[in-house]
Amino acid sequence: MKATILGICPEAAVVDITHEVDKFNVRMGAYILASAAPYFPKGTIHIAVVDPDVGTQRQPLLIKTKREFFVGPDNGLLVLASEKEGIVEIRQITNRKFMLPKVSNTFHGRDLFAPAAAHLANNVSPTEFGPIARDFVKPDFARATRSETALNGEVLHIDEFGNIITNISDPEMTLTQLGKLLRRAQ
Amino acid sequence: MKATILGICPEAAVVDITHEVDKFNVRMGAYILASAAPYFPKGTIHIAVVDPDVGTQRQPLLIKTKREFFVGPDNGLLVLASEKEGIVEIRQITNRKFMLPKVSNTFHGRDLFAPAAAHLANNVSPTEFGPIARDFVKPDFARATRSETALNGEVLHIDEFGNIITNISDPEMTLTQLGKLLRRAQ
Amino acid sequence: MKATILGICPEAAVVDITHEVDKFNVRMGAYILASAAPYFPKGTIHIAVVDPDVGTQRQPLLIKTKREFFVGPDNGLLVLASEKEGIVEIRQITNRKFMLPKVSNTFHGRDLFAPAAAHLANNVSPTEFGPIARDFVKPDFARATRSETALNGEVLHIDEFGNIITNISDPEMTLTQLGKLLRRAQ
Repeated sequence: MKATILGICPEAAVVDITHEVDKFNVRMGAYILASAAPYFPKGTIHIAVVDPDVGTQRQPLLIKTKREFFVGPDNGLLVLASEKEGIVEIRQITNRKFMLPKVSNTFHGRDLFAPAAAHLANNVSPTEFGPIARDFVKPDFARATRSETALNGEVLHIDEFGNIITNISDPEMTLTQLGKLLRRAQ
Repeated sequence: MKATILGICPEAAVVDITHEVDKFNVRMGAYILASAAPYFPKGTIHIAVVDPDVGTQRQPLLIKTKREFFVGPDNGLLVLASEKEGIVEIRQITNRKFMLPKVSNTFHGRDLFAPAAAHLANNVSPTEFGPIARDFVKPDFARATRSETALNGEVLHIDEFGNIITNISDPEMTLTQLGKLLRRAQ
Repeated sequence: MKATILGICPEAAVVDITHEVDKFNVRMGAYILASAAPYFPKGTIHIAVVDPDVGTQRQPLLIKTKREFFVGPDNGLLVLASEKEGIVEIRQITNRKFMLPKVSNTFHGRDLFAPAAAHLANNVSPTEFGPIARDFVKPDFARATRSETALNGEVLHIDEFGNIITNISDPEMTLTQLGKLLRRAQ
């Protein structure tokens, strides 16, 4: 993937966030991407690839947010990060002009996502990559749900130090606690 | 190794292909190098080091191909990649001027291969590194063999997704199948 | 951490030495840093983070040596490398101007050490980061001790090839052997 990127955009500064996401663990990848993205400079182009569903019928996405771009498969991997940053538009990547000449079935990262990101780094406009995506996959892990008496979250990740991270955000927690206080006060 | 490179050629763009080759697994290293090299820009200088036989009597090699350079030990590691790309010339690296002042017995990557690659990146001519190598190690894994009735290959690598990669190339397979068809037709 | 650095100093060349130090193994981290640092160009800024004691009351340090800078926690991690290179001065990092706006309790690498290193790369003077540190942690592993009849060292690291590295330096070993010879000669 780095070779592909540097072949198209030699002056790109390529930074690895991680190669340690467990295979097929989209949830873990989504969490790590959402954790790291806000620390990158404005205008950063993030590529993320985690199976499953890469190289299958899932559409490849290019998401523009208020601060940056995300390129990757439509399997939920980009959801946490892009919603956190504020989605501006989501496009399918369909224009073969911005892919490698031969696109394999098993390595879309190298043949499709990396070239798209590199062309984007070369200032190709997002509109050239393909049409607006009408909808995209949003897994259960992407948001906590609230019932009348409870806030139901999921564990996103247990890190190597034993920290357990859920998909319940600070504001949700605060709101819920406020709600309880209000109910008690009534 | 990166420190050595940047000390000699500060503007080098250093890209890691992998640090996950199993120890002493020259075959796996050779396969990965051959898989990745074609995607890098023309003129790329590849360094590869896998024991065994690094730091022993094996000669250090500098291989020039039609598209790029390979620097590494003469233990078969560079064979698949350089033959695939088209070998132009192979040289021994003997000129101590392009090594670190003190060359250890156990870390030729840092003391010999990295400096050679960095000087090459500084446009030192391949001819200055040492004489043409008359022969070099070519392991069994480097090519499939054909008997009258069979094409005999070896497994190069089993990847983390369970894919099994052999050293039988597409054209060889096609030729063999054609041969069978011809025999049947007779 | 890389995101933080590039956000503050976009032209920084960030080089990973390793991410494979065992958790909480300050000794191993100190050994690897001391092994790699001398090969980097003059003026390099090294960041090193190994728990424990990061993010606790341990002071963050900025060490200037004759050749380079070291940024990291005061838990002994920087001792071997900085003493080997010749310490010029040691400062506490206390100036919040050179930290991220929100400093977490668990990720000083990203919020404190990385920004400090990046500002240093932007030519901020060491004096601006904080006061001279009067003392710093020096673990037992940082030096061999000598008794009348013996030189007592510790194992710093056993590498993946089975090499065992101690904290006894070449000169110490030579001196000790000389001492034995002298005693025998008497």
